Amino acid sequence: MTARQNVSEPATASLESVTEWWSTAVSRIRPGEILLRGYPVEQLIGQLSFAETIWLMLCGDLPTRAQGQLLEAALVAAVDHGPQAPSIAAARMAATCGLGLNNAVATGVNLLGDVHGGAGQQCMEVLAGLDRAATEGTDLDEAAVRLVADYRATRRHIPGFGHRFHPRDPRRDALVGLVGKAVEASEAPGWALRAGLALERALAEGRSRPVPMNIDGATAIVYSELGFPPELGRGLFVLSRSVGILSHAWEEKSGGARIKGPIPRPLLPAYEGPAPRDLIRKDPA
Amino acid sequence: MTARQNVSEPATASLESVTEWWSTAVSRIRPGEILLRGYPVEQLIGQLSFAETIWLMLCGDLPTRAQGQLLEAALVAAVDHGPQAPSIAAARMAATCGLGLNNAVATGVNLLGDVHGGAGQQCMEVLAGLDRAATEGTDLDEAAVRLVADYRATRRHIPGFGHRFHPRDPRRDALVGLVGKAVEASEAPGWALRAGLALERALAEGRSRPVPMNIDGATAIVYSELGFPPELGRGLFVLSRSVGILSHAWEEKSGGARIKGPIPRPLLPAYEGPAPRDLIRKDPA
Amino acid sequence: MTARQNVSEPATASLESVTEWWSTAVSRIRPGEILLRGYPVEQLIGQLSFAETIWLMLCGDLPTRAQGQLLEAALVAAVDHGPQAPSIAAARMAATCGLGLNNAVATGVNLLGDVHGGAGQQCMEVLAGLDRAATEGTDLDEAAVRLVADYRATRRHIPGFGHRFHPRDPRRDALVGLVGKAVEASEAPGWALRAGLALERALAEGRSRPVPMNIDGATAIVYSELGFPPELGRGLFVLSRSVGILSHAWEEKSGGARIKGPIPRPLLPAYEGPAPRDLIRKDPA
Amino acid sequence: MTARQNVSEPATASLESVTEWWSTAVSRIRPGEILLRGYPVEQLIGQLSFAETIWLMLCGDLPTRAQGQLLEAALVAAVDHGPQAPSIAAARMAATCGLGLNNAVATGVNLLGDVHGGAGQQCMEVLAGLDRAATEGTDLDEAAVRLVADYRATRRHIPGFGHRFHPRDPRRDALVGLVGKAVEASEAPGWALRAGLALERALAEGRSRPVPMNIDGATAIVYSELGFPPELGRGLFVLSRSVGILSHAWEEKSGGARIKGPIPRPLLPAYEGPAPRDLIRKDPA
Repeated sequence: MTARQNVSEPATASLESVTEWWSTAVSRIRPGEILLRGYPVEQLIGQLSFAETIWLMLCGDLPTRAQGQLLEAALVAAVDHGPQAPSIAAARMAATCGLGLNNAVATGVNLLGDVHGGAGQQCMEVLAGLDRAATEGTDLDEAAVRLVADYRATRRHIPGFGHRFHPRDPRRDALVGLVGKAVEASEAPGWALRAGLALERALAEGRSRPVPMNIDGATAIVYSELGFPPELGRGLFVLSRSVGILSHAWEEKSGGARIKGPIPRPLLPAYEGPAPRDLIRKDPA
Repeated sequence: MTARQNVSEPATASLESVTEWWSTAVSRIRPGEILLRGYPVEQLIGQLSFAETIWLMLCGDLPTRAQGQLLEAALVAAVDHGPQAPSIAAARMAATCGLGLNNAVATGVNLLGDVHGGAGQQCMEVLAGLDRAATEGTDLDEAAVRLVADYRATRRHIPGFGHRFHPRDPRRDALVGLVGKAVEASEAPGWALRAGLALERALAEGRSRPVPMNIDGATAIVYSELGFPPELGRGLFVLSRSVGILSHAWEEKSGGARIKGPIPRPLLPAYEGPAPRDLIRKDPA
Repeated sequence: MTARQNVSEPATASLESVTEWWSTAVSRIRPGEILLRGYPVEQLIGQLSFAETIWLMLCGDLPTRAQGQLLEAALVAAVDHGPQAPSIAAARMAATCGLGLNNAVATGVNLLGDVHGGAGQQCMEVLAGLDRAATEGTDLDEAAVRLVADYRATRRHIPGFGHRFHPRDPRRDALVGLVGKAVEASEAPGWALRAGLALERALAEGRSRPVPMNIDGATAIVYSELGFPPELGRGLFVLSRSVGILSHAWEEKSGGARIKGPIPRPLLPAYEGPAPRDLIRKDPA
Repeated sequence: MTARQNVSEPATASLESVTEWWSTAVSRIRPGEILLRGYPVEQLIGQLSFAETIWLMLCGDLPTRAQGQLLEAALVAAVDHGPQAPSIAAARMAATCGLGLNNAVATGVNLLGDVHGGAGQQCMEVLAGLDRAATEGTDLDEAAVRLVADYRATRRHIPGFGHRFHPRDPRRDALVGLVGKAVEASEAPGWALRAGLALERALAEGRSRPVPMNIDGATAIVYSELGFPPELGRGLFVLSRSVGILSHAWEEKSGGARIKGPIPRPLLPAYEGPAPRDLIRKDPA
């Protein structure tokens, strides 16, 4: 709870220090003016797609058409994975508790933590690591094989590969195909695609059942190719999955259920605690 | 806390009642298959824009190109209004407290409640009410004048009109212009635009300073023209503003501040409570 | 999203206006000093119970011992109602997604909205209304009978009475008994207890199965007797239920589950959407 | 987003697997019955304090009176540190956006992450580490000196010590005094107190200005002495600070502000982004 240092903490107070405290390069709002990254908002409306505006807001400048289209594809790919996901289920339950849709979406988004929403971000770091190794002269496939061995030795899963549900994630080929075309057309650098495919080969080696890329791996390649830092991989996933969260919350709200629990009413959670007992204080008051 | 009824509560428990409890028309997820509103996700990737996918997920089927473009425009228009908004400020502060970007976005989105995020939804209801009056034979301008008088008599503001900050919201003309063109091209019905403009005229009548539509009013027209129910007006605003929330949270996180409070450190909140006093219990233990 | 007025908005900016903007009567924090409602925190530690401190912080001054004990009882009564409640289930799921316990508790608390957490607050308003009627000369029982008839005519449930689960809520008698003793000892005014019991009688009249008070009704009586405004009824319930939410989130986290969905894995949500279909755009690009 | 393993995932589905999926040792809820850790809730009401109930719910059994009192003291100590804390400020802003108090409290609690709410938990880990060293034969003071040197060499702060605001935290002496008495009376083991004091000595050595324990350090000692695992240190802080969060949110809500931003209206965030520029797409559509 205690904070020790705060970057840019002013030594003395002034009105400038107050406005500086909230300074931003994202937007400038003045009476009659809304600049987004320097562009008047009225010029963006009707000219940029929503995905291109996401790029502009996060990266600070316009994407090329090709970059915008790759971003669209990745955002589209991850919008939903059904109510068995805790984020979706929690948002649906929230929608039955007398909250606004904003609160229901916030509930779902809040759950996209390191474990539920962080695999893409982690995969981007893995891909960047492989690329560094390659840049420093190691053969990419060798580096991938070594990395797989490392993870297996410590019984960890490589983030972005394998799926407990899909033998082959249907989103993989679509996304990898688009990145491949962009690389061919020199609209993406290609390093992350090469690293991802090297990892996939290394994971498949000597196995009857391969461990193909999942949605986190495929979007990690897209976002890495587009130059996003890993942490924004999570951020972009949040924007994408918000669509599914909202759609499910809205469906639930439209259905009219009230205080929906996780399992239907005649069923009760099993109990594994102490048997009924009387309250007996052992020490004197 | 107590719940009394739950729509579709099963009388007896069965495995079917459990899977039915979570039934959905939004998506079907089976090993190797992801259907979104019936469409295989791999067909959407690269074919639909992100905004069109939002439409598909919320409405259940594809938009026309024209509908998709109007939706893009409204989503683009509302992405940000700067850190003086509590939703943005809260998300920025959250980003300095050791949370993931998902938690920071959830914090901001949670604040888009009835007052901060509900004006568009409320405006959609007002527009629909005016349109009903017109359909039932009342002259639209007359109905608008009466509604304005009603609100003024009860000292309420009509949601979606006027802005404490912008004399004229720069997003108004851009959005109204696009809707106008869509109506001309028979790609939107036009009723909400007519109702909104009638309200604007009624609000300006006999005033030196008009009360033009703000972003909530302008997007309410777009979403109404596109056929969305009012509650989804809030939902779409949430998706749009999430972009600004994420951008600001990311900027703050990149800056490295820790435990950022609302005002810089040498300043302390004013205190208006009781003077220092000693704890004296008056009644016996 | 647009805001129109803001109580106490300063006309010009000054450093005073900035510190005033955050002014509070709750606490004063200066180097080496922490005053809570005027009391130095070091005097409270070891002298006040946690419940008494809650009272102090919310009401601005010390409770009597009797008031403190009634508050303890109500806070204890509502701590948990098991994982079938959506707030608890959502917090448990959150705990498996790689979040801190703070995020898991926030997730659960967020769900205690009007429907899931608001019945106590609403019941306090009903009790206050009945008491006003009695103060204005209507016989209390008559007023209660009329109110029950009103609710039944409009097919609404009176908040705080009846339970879809418990034929008789085990917490009712314990809490009502404590309030009764406090009233006898002149440590509580008694109006809310009388109103609640009158309602219970009116609801039972001519019924084979009575509709006894539930936890929301019983705590509404306690909080009303203690002088809390209705909205704080929800606030106190939030503090109380946070204990159960934390306990369940912690149990789940200790168990080590990852990305726990609402139903176990071999089961899949039922699907009631459109049959699989191919993406065919009908309008030209 | 993808999950790979889920502890106790059932191989086949059955109604038992569904009720087992939500099994708990915290509570058993059946018609007419509410058991908390085996105790009928009606026996707890009026018998246990709120703090003792927190202990029961988290630890699974009753505390001694002395344990309950130490827990009360630590919970009381941390309830508030004013609106300059981002958690409090965010909750106050939330209360002005048209949300319920539950949503405002959730907003504040959500911000108590690793940086803002995790120092106590981290300090508990440090204390446990020191104690392990002592148990294995290292002199406690020597171990503390070494640890301080380690942290200083890597330019890290030891969590729970020092305060950027209070030269000496007024809560330190009160809490340390109570733990000292409990140890003397053999009601607490004493290891965490010894470790904390050794650290304080090591930090002060050769310094004109000591670095005394702050609230995180002092409560870390209490919670460690009481046997709580470190992660629950954060959980207990969440329960404690929720009181301040609620008090501030309620004060703000009572004040009637709407859409309160972080700084008063005439002030605007400074802008450090690109100068105004026109939207010009460089690549063909």
